[in-house]
Order: sequence, then C-alpha cells, then structure tokens
Amino acid sequence: MLYIVGIGPGNKEYFTEQAESVLNSVDSIVCYKGYEKFIKRFNKPIYTSGMKKEIDRVDYALKEAKNKNIALVSSGDATIYGMASLSYELNNKNNYNVDIEVISGLTSASLCSAILGAPLNHDFAVISLSDLLTPLDIILKRVNSLLMGDFVIAIYNPLSKSRKEPFLKCFEIIQNHSKQNNLNLVVGIVKNAGRDNEEYKMTTINDLMDNLEEYMKYIDMNTTIIVGSSNTKIINNKMITPRGYLNKYLK
Amino acid sequence: MLYIVGIGPGNKEYFTEQAESVLNSVDSIVCYKGYEKFIKRFNKPIYTSGMKKEIDRVDYALKEAKNKNIALVSSGDATIYGMASLSYELNNKNNYNVDIEVISGLTSASLCSAILGAPLNHDFAVISLSDLLTPLDIILKRVNSLLMGDFVIAIYNPLSKSRKEPFLKCFEIIQNHSKQNNLNLVVGIVKNAGRDNEEYKMTTINDLMDNLEEYMKYIDMNTTIIVGSSNTKIINNKMITPRGYLNKYLK
Ligand SMILES: C[S@@+](CC[C@H](N)C(=O)[O-])C[C@H]1O[C@@H](n2cnc3c(N)ncnc32)[C@H](O)[C@@H]1O
Ligand SMILES: C[S@@+](CC[C@H](N)C(=O)[O-])C[C@H]1O[C@@H](n2cnc3c(N)ncnc32)[C@H](O)[C@@H]1O
Repeated sequence: MLYIVGIGPGNKEYFTEQAESVLNSVDSIVCYKGYEKFIKRFNKPIYTSGMKKEIDRVDYALKEAKNKNIALVSSGDATIYGMASLSYELNNKNNYNVDIEVISGLTSASLCSAILGAPLNHDFAVISLSDLLTPLDIILKRVNSLLMGDFVIAIYNPLSKSRKEPFLKCFEIIQNHSKQNNLNLVVGIVKNAGRDNEEYKMTTINDLMDNLEEYMKYIDMNTTIIVGSSNTKIINNKMITPRGYLNKYLK
Repeated sequence: MLYIVGIGPGNKEYFTEQAESVLNSVDSIVCYKGYEKFIKRFNKPIYTSGMKKEIDRVDYALKEAKNKNIALVSSGDATIYGMASLSYELNNKNNYNVDIEVISGLTSASLCSAILGAPLNHDFAVISLSDLLTPLDIILKRVNSLLMGDFVIAIYNPLSKSRKEPFLKCFEIIQNHSKQNNLNLVVGIVKNAGRDNEEYKMTTINDLMDNLEEYMKYIDMNTTIIVGSSNTKIINNKMITPRGYLNKYLK
C-alpha cells in the first residue's frame, strides 16, 4: 500500500492527525532529501533523493509498496504540484497494481493567505510559473485569462536562480493589465510559510515593478506570491479580499 | 484575541495540531450551528447561530474577543469562502481593535482532490456559484475565462434548492466550450468529503448534461464539483491531471 502524504510546510503543528497517524503506521518513508528533517521524528527507515529525481523516487516508492506500507511524503498538499498524479500514472504504466491513497495536507496558498490576512477570501486560482514541464506560452495565456476574470492569483514556483523569464513576463502582463484598468493591484509575498524563518512583504504591483531587482533577490523557490483582484485591499496591514457581506448588508 | 480557525471537514482526523491546540486553549467557541457537533469535544462554552447570520456571529465573536480568547470556527479553510475577511473588515469598521489570527485548515478542494485521485495536480481555480454576494454575470464571466485558460475548476456552493440558475448557466457554458474544442471534460462530484456520509461520482460533462435532473438531485450544498482541464483523464477509476513528467521524460 502506498500512502501519498501531504505534510503542509513541515513543522509538526501543521500536520493533520491523519498524516500523523499514517506516518506512525508505515514501514518506511520516501521523500525529497530537503524534507528529511520534517519526518525524522517518526523513527522510520527513510529513502531520500534530490530535485529532478521525482520519477526515480516515485518508482522506488511504488516498487517497495508492493509488499510493504510506504509513505511518499510531499510538502503542502500532495495533489497540488506534488507527486500524487505521477504516482497514479507510473502505477498504471508499469502495471504495479499498488493500492494508493492520498492523505491531504495544508497547501501553501492556504497558509500564505492566513499569514497575509485573507486574500483568498473570494474566487482565486493557483498557477505555477515553472516552465520545466509547461510551455511558457501556456503559462502566460493562463495568467492573461485569470486577469480577464479578475481572480486573486496564488503563484507557486515563482522563480529560481536559473529561471527568471516566466516571472518577468508574467509580472509585466499583470502590471499592464493593472494600469489599463487604473488599478494598482495589491501583492503579498510569503517566504518559508509555517517554517522557522517565515517572512513576508506586502506591496503593490507598481512598487514591485519599480523595485524589481530588489524583489527578485527576495523571492525564491520557497516563496508563494498572492496577487489580489481588483477588490483586494489592505486593512490595518492585512491583505483582504472581501466576500461582499458589508457591501450588501451594511451599506 | 480572536482566532479564526479552519477545521477542515470537521472529523477529528483532519484537524491540524495547531487547530486542536488553539481550540483547547480558548475561553469559548463561536460557530455556525451545523458545526457544533464537530467542536463539542473541546468542552468549551459554545455560541452558535444559523445561516445568513454571518455578520451577527462575527460581530459577537469580535466583541467577546476584546477581553477573552475566542475561536471563531469555519469549516475547511477560514480564508476560503469563510469568515476571515469579514472579521477583519468588521474589526476595522467598528473600531474594536481586536487582535486576529487565522489558523489554516484543509479546504474542500484539497480533500475532494484526494478522494477523486489527483485532479488538482496542475494549475487550477476555485470559484463559488453562489450569486447571493456576487452578481451572476461576474460568475459566468469568470467561468468563461477559466475555460479560456484551460484550468481545472473546483466549484464551491454549486446549487441549493432555491438557487439553480447559476449552476445551469455555468454548466451550459462548460459543455459548449467542451464541444467546441472536441473534448468531453471529466467531472468529479464529491459530497460530504471527510464526513461519515462521504460519497462521490466521476463522470463527463456530456453525461452530466444528458442526465441533468438526476445529477441536480444528487448535488447539494455539501458538494464540491471538480471540472477537469483538457489534460485531465481517468486512470484506473481515478481522476488525474498529469503534471507532465511522463510526457517529458518517458516518451
Ligand atoms: C513543487 S511546489 C509544491 C507545492 C506543495 N505541494 C503545496 O501544496 O504547497 C513548490 C512551491 O510551493 C510553494 N511553497 C512550498 N513551500 C512553501 C512555504 N513554506 N512557503 C511559501 N511557499 C511555499 C512555493 O511557491 C514553491 O515554489
Ligand atoms: C461557504 S463554503 C465554505 C468553504 C470552506 N471554508 C472550505 O474551505 O472548504 C461552502 C462550500 O464548501 C464546499 N464544502 C464544504 N464542506 C464540504 C464537504 N465536506 N464536502 C464537499 N464540499 C464541501 C461546498 O461546495 C459548499 O457549498
């Protein structure tokens, strides 16, 4: 049996009771090497591998899971840019016939929303800027359609040392849209949410673009960016997207 | 101090350790009356009120929180169609000056994704079909832009006994889009996720529209619907949106 377990940001307080009990019950745990520190406390045999070794890792976990109970650990939620779909695909392709169960975890967008205030409190989208597996033109087309729909946008995988183009193009599009509509969209940037070195900044698209280099130094692969909709505002230093109660009932 | 606490679907196994410890620490708990059963076990004084009493409930919680520690409980995540933004707004409007902290919880989309397989495993959006606080033309415009961007769509508040029009119009748009692109989009429907009476159906947009009455009887206010992107498929009875590893590396 293979459990694909989302552990949220990794610190114990964000584990669900279900993730906790599954990780206590399995024979061994498989994960990205950077997450070993979060699951050592379960005292299980651990198999780790590095970035870009996702297929190897999932294949190893599936093979082991034929006659043992294995947990494949993802940060956040395992079905959100995690290893869940790849596990189902490989299980099928290689005819392993392993039983798979996904255990949900807190995804970064949810945690970052709480840290910033409540920016996700109306219709929103989650998009990854990584063009490793998705062509850049599709990413940009998606950003465009989200702006057309005035969605709050949670951006995962914003940039890395070697991958800056999608970020630059995406934020250029956002600024153009914002200007054309006489807006200055609120932007929240959260780094290492739920971890010991958690930090965040709250700004606007114009300020971000005016100080692009500085912000691009700040943003890394452990950062989620939330771009507000036209309704998102800052109230007492919190980034809030109203759901509409006050407008409707207390005007 | 006001803690706004997301408890996921309500059953104990989905609480985070943080939610658990905050609810154990507060003086009293405020929630929608339907959720009382999920938080009785904390043995705290509980104040409940019914649907459409959201402003009263939040205002009561804020007033109490001036000199006590209060938890305002939301199902799922409190910043996702929950009470978080309204709390910040009322706190400001009425000058209560209460300290507010949001405690993240598992949102329905995440849980429903795990139940169905891994449909959220690529760019996705979350949209509510309730036109109580959002005009229907904005909802439909948003659905349209999500289809243009080929997003996976998680639909909250799909319909109620007295509110069927947004559902009908939204799914008509989805079917038209699907047909125009020679697709038959996969649709997953999950009811009471993470609760004792959890159930789900997996189908396609054409089958749904061919048996609309039947499906509309099945779907209720405790249902989340996930509409796949053009890449979403069913593999061994699971609804999967591939992230792209296999296409890129094992072709
Ligand atoms: C491959 S994705 C994994 C997402 C994860 N499965 C989830 O549900 O949160 C990695 C991206 O998630 C976001 N992320 C992961 N951990 C984070 C954290 N602690 N704080 C902020 N963002 C985080 C960043 O955008 C990062 O580039
Ligand atoms: C007012 S919204 C609250 C959402 C909640 N804050 C969350 O993050 O999941 C209510 C909608 O959430 C979804 N929902 C809530 N609980 C659910 C459950 N147990 N199973 C499936 N969907 C659920 C349904 O779409 C429902 O109409």
